[in-house]
Amino acid sequence: MQVYRLQPGSDIAGLELRDEAAPSLAPHQVRVRVRAVALNFRDLMVARGTYLASDGQSLIPGSDAAGEVIEIGAAVTRWRVGDRVASTFFPYWQDGAPTAAKTRAAPGAAADGVLAEQIVWGEDQLVGVPTHLDWHEAATLTCAGVTAWNALFVEGRLKPGASVLLLGTGGVSIWGLQLAHAAGVRTIVTSSSDAKLERARQLGASATINYRATPEWQEEVLRLTNGAGVDAVLEVGGQGTLTRSVASTGMGGTVAIIGGVSGFGGELEPFALIGGARRLSGIFVGSHAMHHDLNRLVTQADIHPVIDRVFAFDQAREAYAHLASGAHFGKVVIGV
Amino acid sequence: MQVYRLQPGSDIAGLELRDEAAPSLAPHQVRVRVRAVALNFRDLMVARGTYLASDGQSLIPGSDAAGEVIEIGAAVTRWRVGDRVASTFFPYWQDGAPTAAKTRAAPGAAADGVLAEQIVWGEDQLVGVPTHLDWHEAATLTCAGVTAWNALFVEGRLKPGASVLLLGTGGVSIWGLQLAHAAGVRTIVTSSSDAKLERARQLGASATINYRATPEWQEEVLRLTNGAGVDAVLEVGGQGTLTRSVASTGMGGTVAIIGGVSGFGGELEPFALIGGARRLSGIFVGSHAMHHDLNRLVTQADIHPVIDRVFAFDQAREAYAHLASGAHFGKVVIGV
Amino acid sequence: MQVYRLQPGSDIAGLELRDEAAPSLAPHQVRVRVRAVALNFRDLMVARGTYLASDGQSLIPGSDAAGEVIEIGAAVTRWRVGDRVASTFFPYWQDGAPTAAKTRAAPGAAADGVLAEQIVWGEDQLVGVPTHLDWHEAATLTCAGVTAWNALFVEGRLKPGASVLLLGTGGVSIWGLQLAHAAGVRTIVTSSSDAKLERARQLGASATINYRATPEWQEEVLRLTNGAGVDAVLEVGGQGTLTRSVASTGMGGTVAIIGGVSGFGGELEPFALIGGARRLSGIFVGSHAMHHDLNRLVTQADIHPVIDRVFAFDQAREAYAHLASGAHFGKVVIGV
Amino acid sequence: MQVYRLQPGSDIAGLELRDEAAPSLAPHQVRVRVRAVALNFRDLMVARGTYLASDGQSLIPGSDAAGEVIEIGAAVTRWRVGDRVASTFFPYWQDGAPTAAKTRAAPGAAADGVLAEQIVWGEDQLVGVPTHLDWHEAATLTCAGVTAWNALFVEGRLKPGASVLLLGTGGVSIWGLQLAHAAGVRTIVTSSSDAKLERARQLGASATINYRATPEWQEEVLRLTNGAGVDAVLEVGGQGTLTRSVASTGMGGTVAIIGGVSGFGGELEPFALIGGARRLSGIFVGSHAMHHDLNRLVTQADIHPVIDRVFAFDQAREAYAHLASGAHFGKVVIGV
Repeated sequence: MQVYRLQPGSDIAGLELRDEAAPSLAPHQVRVRVRAVALNFRDLMVARGTYLASDGQSLIPGSDAAGEVIEIGAAVTRWRVGDRVASTFFPYWQDGAPTAAKTRAAPGAAADGVLAEQIVWGEDQLVGVPTHLDWHEAATLTCAGVTAWNALFVEGRLKPGASVLLLGTGGVSIWGLQLAHAAGVRTIVTSSSDAKLERARQLGASATINYRATPEWQEEVLRLTNGAGVDAVLEVGGQGTLTRSVASTGMGGTVAIIGGVSGFGGELEPFALIGGARRLSGIFVGSHAMHHDLNRLVTQADIHPVIDRVFAFDQAREAYAHLASGAHFGKVVIGV
Repeated sequence: MQVYRLQPGSDIAGLELRDEAAPSLAPHQVRVRVRAVALNFRDLMVARGTYLASDGQSLIPGSDAAGEVIEIGAAVTRWRVGDRVASTFFPYWQDGAPTAAKTRAAPGAAADGVLAEQIVWGEDQLVGVPTHLDWHEAATLTCAGVTAWNALFVEGRLKPGASVLLLGTGGVSIWGLQLAHAAGVRTIVTSSSDAKLERARQLGASATINYRATPEWQEEVLRLTNGAGVDAVLEVGGQGTLTRSVASTGMGGTVAIIGGVSGFGGELEPFALIGGARRLSGIFVGSHAMHHDLNRLVTQADIHPVIDRVFAFDQAREAYAHLASGAHFGKVVIGV
Repeated sequence: MQVYRLQPGSDIAGLELRDEAAPSLAPHQVRVRVRAVALNFRDLMVARGTYLASDGQSLIPGSDAAGEVIEIGAAVTRWRVGDRVASTFFPYWQDGAPTAAKTRAAPGAAADGVLAEQIVWGEDQLVGVPTHLDWHEAATLTCAGVTAWNALFVEGRLKPGASVLLLGTGGVSIWGLQLAHAAGVRTIVTSSSDAKLERARQLGASATINYRATPEWQEEVLRLTNGAGVDAVLEVGGQGTLTRSVASTGMGGTVAIIGGVSGFGGELEPFALIGGARRLSGIFVGSHAMHHDLNRLVTQADIHPVIDRVFAFDQAREAYAHLASGAHFGKVVIGV
Repeated sequence: MQVYRLQPGSDIAGLELRDEAAPSLAPHQVRVRVRAVALNFRDLMVARGTYLASDGQSLIPGSDAAGEVIEIGAAVTRWRVGDRVASTFFPYWQDGAPTAAKTRAAPGAAADGVLAEQIVWGEDQLVGVPTHLDWHEAATLTCAGVTAWNALFVEGRLKPGASVLLLGTGGVSIWGLQLAHAAGVRTIVTSSSDAKLERARQLGASATINYRATPEWQEEVLRLTNGAGVDAVLEVGGQGTLTRSVASTGMGGTVAIIGGVSGFGGELEPFALIGGARRLSGIFVGSHAMHHDLNRLVTQADIHPVIDRVFAFDQAREAYAHLASGAHFGKVVIGV
């Protein structure tokens, strides 16, 4: 089978396409013919060598795959050949709060990932795929969709009718917009592009803010919420955004920390948290149970994830470069 | 001002229209010109003398009112003359779990209620009214709307994309349908009337079951959910429904007990709860915070509560009788 | 190796000791030399053929084992030879709410259990054992300890300083007493034996009630709580207890349904749940995460589980018969 | 009656003892003869003019009082003359999450406080006092006790058997130590004084760290927890502590932000939150329900709050100065 391998720290240029023997199958395992892989900013970080700790070993990158079950082990009871499945971000995190054991051996970072023609995973490490999604769409739930779910409905504790501020129009933010909209949550989206804001409104955004035109956007958030602030912010990181995100958040609200590669810049003011009883919550993707819950809402609300662009399997470097450019709206996907 | 008074146990015939002096106003109180009162099954129970304990004293009935602030006490800071407000079901239950102190002095049962031209209440005992609702609609949130909210999202813990079974088409069930639909929750509605089921589908019901045509409706619920069962049932009570409701509920799910005047009939089978880790939860209406949350979703999703019929103020007995007939679909309201 | 086998429905007499080949080891599996097995009422039900559905196949009974790791598969990272481990009740229920998939293949009922000299389990299906426990004590956490934890702290939501009513002095109730006491929870214990109540007080019971001497024991519970009722009841089942348990429970409280083989007798009164916002929750043992949490409290509070009696491996029938007699106080254990 | 008044910003010297007329009593109000007032760091901040916004008006300082009901209004049902009561920190925050309305008119900051011979409060704004506490002890629950409860058991979500790191030996930290110990939670306490650490161990501290002797104390916390980190930290603020507190916290754990007058110093590293799924939670004291829960644990576990020193009513300036010195261990109280 064909697979990509990468030396963490070798950057995008380090991606190499190889022929390898397909892995063997144990009794509780399932062989999946991968049909699509979705990229995440984390994949760029792994390539650049900036994602958590790495032992520096060459690995198959990628965490988000959708494909078809083509063989099952003798003891498998949960899947049949022909089932459509997706990878889970943390194969050992079934449910509940994260632990070191649950988040071990993360594919595409601490273990081999999914940018390959085949993967062999345990039967309890896969989840089903909503029937109305094509392969490209189905590959986008694993990391970005689950992260948005966790930020909105687990850490963010958003109830129907609550409000959320979504920064920018990357993969997690657009997922957040679609999920919040389907769940009766009011959405405010920021971007520097009026064209992207227009697309966000078409996806259901209740209000939009161009942060170029309105640099003090936290004031506009307060104005839009009659001074109350939003119940949660999906903070994907950016210089100087954190202080504004906290100021945009209502009493008892949550700033869900999803990104912030270069640091947020500036010092956190303790009383901004205390006096408002606010919360900063680090979001480490999520569990199989969150992925399952996400599947249900995607199905019930007939959500189609927003695909920015699909690349062919031999164009993985181009796909990574496109993601790195920051020009995308929604997800970047590689067909396999 | 004109008010209705009732001797608990005197039945509908006991309702009397009287002239009384308007109550005086303390510094933290607000005077409200009532514009509409919505009826609940509980009002029938009070009239019949079957609602919890009563000291048998004559009282002003009714719990659900919407109206206009026409005077404020000297210390009031939360309201101004002209504000549109609604009564809370339990004036002392602000938030959190119920206690005896929080649920004391319930209007229309343990204390004077709202079926009157004016009420004088504490400033922290009122909530605002969504701006897009007319007075008749606005009066229907206090008991039925809050009960449905509590059953779905507090005790029922429903997440977006989950599923709920709604028994019948009374006030709470139709509220449950509208709220669940707005929150991305899948809904299954039962009725003995195909015409009512058709109306339920127009309101967004995902599936419907005529329990006359399908007496073993729990089997149809399981079929509709691929054998998994629903995440919650709004059990409004009826002979023999409880066992079927439990059987319709998935593992870890909740049967929210909302009514059941005559008892459910038959014995509860312990292993039906244990083996499925199921929960029966008594729903005692809800708190101001739930009412506030309800207001937000009603606003965000532009929900208009379903009004079955509006009666004039001097037709209160007719309104009670119409509710007692069970022919309604949605809420019965008295204009004031 | 020596194992017991049992035909469900053949009763205690059906227990047979056999010689079987030790199972082989897959890469993610661990071989455990079992040192002790604790019995539960569920084991009697399996023997009698009254526990949930069974396919009638002969199986190795027992769910609760403690032992020593004697061999690890090539891919195992979480355990080393010599580690002391315990079985989990549901090998596939890591955390969160139960599902059908998580509770599949339960050892000793739906799959082979632990009453054997060796077991071979997946590395994620075992939990550690608190270092201060001997083998007999260590075997008692899997079912009874985890069930008590779930009832008290998950479904029962008990906070430090809350109160709990424990019915009788069987394995789960005594575990509940020890855990609640260690967590700052007030405990009330019932029994028909003054001698057992005296032992309960020695274990920290705040108050005790002899239900022979006080048949209307729910009135005594209310008296002991100044009329407020307890926050939770561990309802292990008995003719006519359920109505009294509900009456003993305060507003917003939980009756945790743990047993009730013969049914509780009598009809459930809907308003007993509604007017008190009370909850009946079926407890289906619990997850690995609960087992882990239990381990931590047992360690922190230096709890030694109460062992009623230890039987030798060749006395399994006698051990079952002793449990069936109901004379025990705490757990019945078989040394292996 | 005698009262203290203070101009915010006038510092300790601004405290003035005056004679004022006792306030009149409305129907739902209660008159309390104050017996003791406990001081908090917040009282120093009010004096210095650094506590949230202030309108600069002279006010009666102090939030924490215990005393005796000496008169009740005509409509009062919850208290009788002679009852022992304590003030609540936020008179309008009954339960649930904080809102602007619930946290309005905070005594001693945004409204007149309790450093007076009498206070007149609404019947729903007071809570009872555990019977085993004397007046000095009873005055210490309102702010410090409730803050510790909120940090440990609400925002910190600590379960029995979990672990907590307590920074220093001020009022909130010692309350945290006593409550955690009573609830079966493992405690690690830091201080620069071996004598204070010895007292902490006498109060039940599981482990102690002298941060002078061990400047990299986060490494010692990790060592004491086998590398896992604690489940929560009570971060009372200090230069450079926040980064160490985050590093001391296990995956999914909470740093409860309680103080931090001068800022924590340095920038927050986003991945320290994301990779560990950690949470920073601002703690804004708490609700009446938390105060009630605190009362129950204090009663059940027979906790006596640690009083550092009691000053006479005419020594309020000396009491403030003693608190400002930082030399205390536990609470500083003024007898009235």
